[in-house]
Amino acid sequence: MPIALRLHAPVILPCDAACSVIRDAVVDIDGNGRIAYCGTRTRAPALPHDTVVRECTGVLLPGLINAHAHSPMTLLRGMGGDLPLLRWLREVVWPAESRLRPSDVRAGMALGAVEMLRAGVTTSAEMYFVGESVVEATLAVGSRVLLTSAVIAAPDLSTLGSWQQMVEGVNRWIDADGLRFGPGERIELGYGPHSAYTLPPEALQVIGENAQQRGALVHTHVAESSTEDAELRQQYGSVPMLLDELGVLDGRVLAAHGVHLSDEDIALFARRGVGLAHCPGSNAKLASGTARLVDLLAAGVPVGLGTDGPSSNDDLDLWEEVQLSGMLARLSTGDSTAVTARSALLAATRGGAAALHREDIGALESGRWADIVHVDVDNPAFATGLDAPDEQLLSNLVWAAGSRSVRDVWVAGAEVLRDSEPTRVDRRSVQAAARTAAQHVRG
Amino acid sequence: MPIALRLHAPVILPCDAACSVIRDAVVDIDGNGRIAYCGTRTRAPALPHDTVVRECTGVLLPGLINAHAHSPMTLLRGMGGDLPLLRWLREVVWPAESRLRPSDVRAGMALGAVEMLRAGVTTSAEMYFVGESVVEATLAVGSRVLLTSAVIAAPDLSTLGSWQQMVEGVNRWIDADGLRFGPGERIELGYGPHSAYTLPPEALQVIGENAQQRGALVHTHVAESSTEDAELRQQYGSVPMLLDELGVLDGRVLAAHGVHLSDEDIALFARRGVGLAHCPGSNAKLASGTARLVDLLAAGVPVGLGTDGPSSNDDLDLWEEVQLSGMLARLSTGDSTAVTARSALLAATRGGAAALHREDIGALESGRWADIVHVDVDNPAFATGLDAPDEQLLSNLVWAAGSRSVRDVWVAGAEVLRDSEPTRVDRRSVQAAARTAAQHVRG
Ligand SMILES: [Zn+2]
Ligand SMILES: [Zn+2]
Repeated sequence: MPIALRLHAPVILPCDAACSVIRDAVVDIDGNGRIAYCGTRTRAPALPHDTVVRECTGVLLPGLINAHAHSPMTLLRGMGGDLPLLRWLREVVWPAESRLRPSDVRAGMALGAVEMLRAGVTTSAEMYFVGESVVEATLAVGSRVLLTSAVIAAPDLSTLGSWQQMVEGVNRWIDADGLRFGPGERIELGYGPHSAYTLPPEALQVIGENAQQRGALVHTHVAESSTEDAELRQQYGSVPMLLDELGVLDGRVLAAHGVHLSDEDIALFARRGVGLAHCPGSNAKLASGTARLVDLLAAGVPVGLGTDGPSSNDDLDLWEEVQLSGMLARLSTGDSTAVTARSALLAATRGGAAALHREDIGALESGRWADIVHVDVDNPAFATGLDAPDEQLLSNLVWAAGSRSVRDVWVAGAEVLRDSEPTRVDRRSVQAAARTAAQHVRG
Repeated sequence: MPIALRLHAPVILPCDAACSVIRDAVVDIDGNGRIAYCGTRTRAPALPHDTVVRECTGVLLPGLINAHAHSPMTLLRGMGGDLPLLRWLREVVWPAESRLRPSDVRAGMALGAVEMLRAGVTTSAEMYFVGESVVEATLAVGSRVLLTSAVIAAPDLSTLGSWQQMVEGVNRWIDADGLRFGPGERIELGYGPHSAYTLPPEALQVIGENAQQRGALVHTHVAESSTEDAELRQQYGSVPMLLDELGVLDGRVLAAHGVHLSDEDIALFARRGVGLAHCPGSNAKLASGTARLVDLLAAGVPVGLGTDGPSSNDDLDLWEEVQLSGMLARLSTGDSTAVTARSALLAATRGGAAALHREDIGALESGRWADIVHVDVDNPAFATGLDAPDEQLLSNLVWAAGSRSVRDVWVAGAEVLRDSEPTRVDRRSVQAAARTAAQHVRG
């Protein structure tokens, strides 16, 4: 397969396991949008003279992965944000969600996807309803999604049908379209059982079986707050133990939050290869606590970072979660060296891919998709710019730069953000459509 | 005094005590750069037809106040950031600071001032050395500073002279140039005794007396970490009690951090009107803890927000501190309604002014300086843009927008940032100078 595009940059962070810093480096992208080579320019394979070479002036790194999101909730952003959790759900969120039409979900997801691209997020694991609209919006914007359609048995959302109907819907969709599809396999389908406290054990078991038959991901909320699963803990020990007993952990599982996990739960997740989506911002703003990031990483649990829904957090800026993951780990352990810049960056990239059980994204390595972010260093965040030693450059990128430094983004080798503006949709039109939808949803 | 400039915007947040939201509003600025009127357009005084009116499309609010910073440390940003605190100071910070020349401090402060303007910060309370360079840089960039020259008795920094010499330096400077000077009184001088654990009690007492004679601010670190002042606490009860015993609290005092304050300390601060600079990000990243924001506000302590030095935090983006103040208050109290969008915004503006004992900044009110920020709502952070109800608009601004939404900034009525670029200095030249200086400082 010939090389379609070469990106050349003064610094590339491939997000390999060691989080290397490569100077004067290139990424070669083949005609299918996969990486053919990433390394120093001097060792790069020779290319035909007519190969397109894009000169980048900043730092290239893999597209970030938002490991837990409900992005169409951009439409509800800021509604009742200062209310206590249960009143907020009952009085604000559920009534608004019951007004959502497919076109609203599409508009909200498009806004979220644009917002994420502007923060360098190329893939999100989405748990939401009306999956077709999520897929449409993602394909239009040009990003990548792992869509795990929500399955829930909640009286307030009964218009959505029974959990059995929801599971059947996912089964039919995967059986018809395949697990991954679209250009650059930009869409993956999976199952999104909301949680063990909003579904009967039988539902979790059935979902686990159906997902395993199809090789699909199960994405569920686990141990977010200390109160949600008191009964389950009394009966089964913990939600992770319940999920294991039901056979769910035999397949690909992504657990969101995991704030209140015991040592045994963490060991179980590590043994079963369960991925964890750590959402430090959401958990702080909702006063849920802080997941045990240091212990999870030490146990070998694949950890990614998630924003959770923008209705509560309140944005889809994963750079904030990167910084928060470090700050809150240090705060909760009392150790100011607890999480380094390197490990925080890896959680947002390589770790996110591992948590989603995906080996085709999250790093700039041969064979993976060319999902790439170009970070501009021409701003005050970078003390000494590209001349800085590796450690300082990494530190500036992770702790100081933030999403406003993201300049260009490619997904499967196609440029979908250029100079901070999406290339495939008009940002202002997307915003306008989302605002109209948000007004409808507000009722 | 005739009106020199009127700003008209669909929404103005004057940051009055109630944090009102005024629609279709104007701010009138007189020829001295002070606010003559802020309110609805319909009630605004009639103006001569040739008055310049600037139409703004977003939200106007007061310039943010960074209540605790060491901004020239932009030059050290990211150096050794993953080391434990004491090793970091001894092996990285102090050796680098001993290499600082006046031109370096000027370059580092200019970079910091530009970074702050881009985040909507118009005033910072700076504790640092080589004050002349800090003032020069601030005047060049066009922002406002309350410069409290550092006074410290530390063997590693002995080249700076004795604490007595440092105090004499501030005395002479204030006596020569006055407490506030420069166009729009953009410079205020004060005293920056580093802390009770790096100075003898006698020094604190002398500084308190000299500051009170001149009406100047005393800006000092208090109770940042749990270990720093164990001896002092044993001897005097606490650092606040020591400061009170020495008479320091009889004057204008700004205490930075205040993470480890007892109920008695908080009551004492409230009684004495001591301002507190809450630095949630720095305190988290250095694993120091979280100040008791809710209790401080309830007691009536004037609380502002600070970034602390960019060598540790790692940037001067006060919007992050706004969001962190809310998140960490909620996390530490377990109450998801602990700090509202309104109170977080007020801490960054009106509260910061009160903490600095300044009534001439921090709000858009007649008589105060016209330090104003224009926030662009034409981006994905604002779910429904300007059509949103007040609460949602405030929530979007505070929890979602971030510094990248800051578009234009005025200080004392002069536009010093336009379309995110400083108007009085060339950003790239400032960055280039800072990078050269940073390379020198790195050694
Ligand atoms: Zn969630
Ligand atoms: Zn400090």
